[in-house]
Amino acid sequence: MPPASLSSSGSSVLRRIESSRLFQGAVIAIIILSALTIGAKTYELSPWVERTLGILDTAITVFFLLEILFRFVACPDKRRFFLDGWNIFDTIVVIGSLIPLDNSEAVLLGRLLRVFRVLRLVSVLPELRFLINSLLKAIPRMGYIALLMFIIFYIYAAIGSMFFAGVDEYLWGDVAVSMLTLFRVATFEDWTDVMYATMELHPLSWIYYLTFIFLTAFIFLNMMVGAILEVMSSEQNAREVQQAHDERDRIVHQLDAVQEQLRALTLAVQAQQPPDRRA
Amino acid sequence: MPPASLSSSGSSVLRRIESSRLFQGAVIAIIILSALTIGAKTYELSPWVERTLGILDTAITVFFLLEILFRFVACPDKRRFFLDGWNIFDTIVVIGSLIPLDNSEAVLLGRLLRVFRVLRLVSVLPELRFLINSLLKAIPRMGYIALLMFIIFYIYAAIGSMFFAGVDEYLWGDVAVSMLTLFRVATFEDWTDVMYATMELHPLSWIYYLTFIFLTAFIFLNMMVGAILEVMSSEQNAREVQQAHDERDRIVHQLDAVQEQLRALTLAVQAQQPPDRRA
Amino acid sequence: MPPASLSSSGSSVLRRIESSRLFQGAVIAIIILSALTIGAKTYELSPWVERTLGILDTAITVFFLLEILFRFVACPDKRRFFLDGWNIFDTIVVIGSLIPLDNSEAVLLGRLLRVFRVLRLVSVLPELRFLINSLLKAIPRMGYIALLMFIIFYIYAAIGSMFFAGVDEYLWGDVAVSMLTLFRVATFEDWTDVMYATMELHPLSWIYYLTFIFLTAFIFLNMMVGAILEVMSSEQNAREVQQAHDERDRIVHQLDAVQEQLRALTLAVQAQQPPDRRA
Amino acid sequence: MPPASLSSSGSSVLRRIESSRLFQGAVIAIIILSALTIGAKTYELSPWVERTLGILDTAITVFFLLEILFRFVACPDKRRFFLDGWNIFDTIVVIGSLIPLDNSEAVLLGRLLRVFRVLRLVSVLPELRFLINSLLKAIPRMGYIALLMFIIFYIYAAIGSMFFAGVDEYLWGDVAVSMLTLFRVATFEDWTDVMYATMELHPLSWIYYLTFIFLTAFIFLNMMVGAILEVMSSEQNAREVQQAHDERDRIVHQLDAVQEQLRALTLAVQAQQPPDRRA
Repeated sequence: MPPASLSSSGSSVLRRIESSRLFQGAVIAIIILSALTIGAKTYELSPWVERTLGILDTAITVFFLLEILFRFVACPDKRRFFLDGWNIFDTIVVIGSLIPLDNSEAVLLGRLLRVFRVLRLVSVLPELRFLINSLLKAIPRMGYIALLMFIIFYIYAAIGSMFFAGVDEYLWGDVAVSMLTLFRVATFEDWTDVMYATMELHPLSWIYYLTFIFLTAFIFLNMMVGAILEVMSSEQNAREVQQAHDERDRIVHQLDAVQEQLRALTLAVQAQQPPDRRA
Repeated sequence: MPPASLSSSGSSVLRRIESSRLFQGAVIAIIILSALTIGAKTYELSPWVERTLGILDTAITVFFLLEILFRFVACPDKRRFFLDGWNIFDTIVVIGSLIPLDNSEAVLLGRLLRVFRVLRLVSVLPELRFLINSLLKAIPRMGYIALLMFIIFYIYAAIGSMFFAGVDEYLWGDVAVSMLTLFRVATFEDWTDVMYATMELHPLSWIYYLTFIFLTAFIFLNMMVGAILEVMSSEQNAREVQQAHDERDRIVHQLDAVQEQLRALTLAVQAQQPPDRRA
Repeated sequence: MPPASLSSSGSSVLRRIESSRLFQGAVIAIIILSALTIGAKTYELSPWVERTLGILDTAITVFFLLEILFRFVACPDKRRFFLDGWNIFDTIVVIGSLIPLDNSEAVLLGRLLRVFRVLRLVSVLPELRFLINSLLKAIPRMGYIALLMFIIFYIYAAIGSMFFAGVDEYLWGDVAVSMLTLFRVATFEDWTDVMYATMELHPLSWIYYLTFIFLTAFIFLNMMVGAILEVMSSEQNAREVQQAHDERDRIVHQLDAVQEQLRALTLAVQAQQPPDRRA
Repeated sequence: MPPASLSSSGSSVLRRIESSRLFQGAVIAIIILSALTIGAKTYELSPWVERTLGILDTAITVFFLLEILFRFVACPDKRRFFLDGWNIFDTIVVIGSLIPLDNSEAVLLGRLLRVFRVLRLVSVLPELRFLINSLLKAIPRMGYIALLMFIIFYIYAAIGSMFFAGVDEYLWGDVAVSMLTLFRVATFEDWTDVMYATMELHPLSWIYYLTFIFLTAFIFLNMMVGAILEVMSSEQNAREVQQAHDERDRIVHQLDAVQEQLRALTLAVQAQQPPDRRA
């Protein structure tokens, strides 16, 4: 397999370049530059600056395209390249940036996709990648709590739009709008204004708001407590078991030595027995 | 007991149907459909859709009635069926749905009871049932904190309506209304508006608000810390004791072996003694 | 000491009465009744009800007076009675209630002191008393954090009133008023209104608000984390040390037994030595 | 080295003075006095009081100057004096106070620097110094979370100013202003007003706000959980390992004794062997 080994040695050079601090730094610098041009475009700019930014944008797009191609070539296993979520993400963002900005129809979509280039910072910095991974791991844990929350919001929204639609069509018109209003209440955002309005017609409607706030706050609190405990106990469990093993191994080894000594002693005692009594 | 065994074998078939994934899936699908019809009714609808929803509602009610009867028949012990809180809850919700929606007087009650059908999702999904059970377990722990909070709210409300009733009858009219206002202050909802109004007449009333906010926040914080610690320590305690036992059992067993060796050795030494010295 | 023993047997009867569930229940009932009359007085009442409440108030005052005297007599050690903070608290509240309500000048003070009767519920219920004690224990832990917070508030308030007094005299007039405004900002209560107003004159004043919010939130967060950790580690430490001792004691005892066996074995071996070699 | 020992004995006297409770108390008292004069200046004052405060200010500046010189002289190692961050901080604050207050141009800067004298309380009280040090230690832990938060804010701000700049130039004009608006949304400060305004033009913009709130709340929550866990596990780890060592050391020592006994016993048994069998 000379060609394979050749290619492998070639790609190992590429990989050494890829993982060099200079290359990484250059990519990070270009991403930050890209972020700055995105931010700059939200300001009023003179045509001259606008044109410069356009050229810069093309240059950045080309750089990112070359960088992803380079990383693809440097990757020893081409199939596994697209099994990594971060590579797929990078590729989509880069391909999305190829949409030209002068086409008046797709201009908004093109600009939107360019914004996501900033997220490439996450895929490039290993610490942020690790952070995101650990955040993603926390999601399933919250799945059923989120479902429960949704059910509570839905029931309260259905009741709310049933009773309060007449009070304020904008806030309680239908179940979707009511859920948005309830989310507002859950964030305590001017929730008393909402309550005082409905209390004009339904004087007891404060029960509705208070039970809702207590329910959501109670579930949220328990969710947080649960999250802390779950991560903690799983992590600690592993750590403690490991530590206990390490510590006790010393005792076990010492006990092994004791048993060894005893065995030797027993042999010595037996060897001492007069020959006539041995049989 | 042939009839009993017959019925038992019959009900075991029913139970197998009941716990089948298909049956569970059908029930969940119907509950979600029911939730959607409830949501749909909060929108402006054409008479044709309205009529279809009415028919759908009847069909869902009949399905739920049949489902609960089926589960009752499938249950091996009829008495224990109604000892399970979830079964009682399901039965009440289903019976409540039997109230006809065309009767103009009971229409609101009927619609309200139909909303609670969505809660059946909780009783059907075991994960949500488990979640609710663990939440219910957390309630007693918070009982005395809630009482303490109520006492603080009551005292501040009594003082508030004593001093500030003249400032704003709507906010401080009586002790009940004052408690609602204080709850608003506790959620930081436009609390400075309330304070600035009373500070016009009572320039030192900021003391009232600040002590109240500090007290409630302090108790809330401690409650949360307490909740985390209580659940944690009880859980961890059990885990650690178990683990410590497991680990130490190994050492104890090894020590047992050492003692066994020593006993054998002692016997060997004693056996070695000349016969004349044994007596 | 016959008189002493007589009095002691008499006071033991009183103490049995005092700690009886009936007596405790009666006291709790009267406190709740007292709380209700306090609440009732905040409503508009007919003269007839008002008069009834007045009589009820006198009756409650007399009852509380008798109760505290009874508890004082029932107390075996009169000196220690006033060393207990709860007894002092009860006595002050009861004596405060003796201020007559018809005297027009002291009427507000009298009513205020009557409000604190509700707090007697805390001194009567042991669970609440325990809760308050554990809350009081948490205060010193927060002492230096509170001082640090005060310093930060003071510095920001001094800077605020230095720069923003011209913008809004009411919010930033002097250092005291500025601290109140900053507390408002810390609770996120319409803080952007305050910021937008000062940004008109000082466009960079958002730095002031953001650094302040980050500082207070950061310190608050760390305080909470610290509180959880401190309580936890002290509690857990005690628990773990205890448990570790219990578990290890078994191993240590077994090792003692091993050493005992070894000593016996050594003696047996020495006893076996021929008499001539012993000296 | 007589001169060195002389100077060292002289500085040890100074150091004894420096660490005396009286000296410390005087410094704290002067700092508090300094804080009060800073606060007093924010009020409307009569010219007489103003003049007195001016004299007081000069006196405090002189006192602080003498104190820092004294501490510098008392310090045995002059080089290490400026390696301590607290000393550098004190020196800068004191030198900053030397700016005269009557110079009309630098008056604001001079007053601002005088405000920071209050912070000297932190450098003087060891408990606050310890607190600040532990807070500073918590910062790096939050570094990458802060970066992630900034990226999310930046992306949302870029999208926001792209779509909503036409709705409200003041809130969404450019990327910087949008980030401020998003920070407002993250603190739930009248965020629905912002949302309802943009929903007029973009009815689906609630998705923008809800995803933003969920993302920031989710990351914040995880950051808090992470902070609790990290501090806890590192602290607990150290504590547990220490405790486990202490406890197990006892067992290990006892096992050493057992092995010693066994060694002695083996020697005894070997000594017992008849001389002819020894070789």
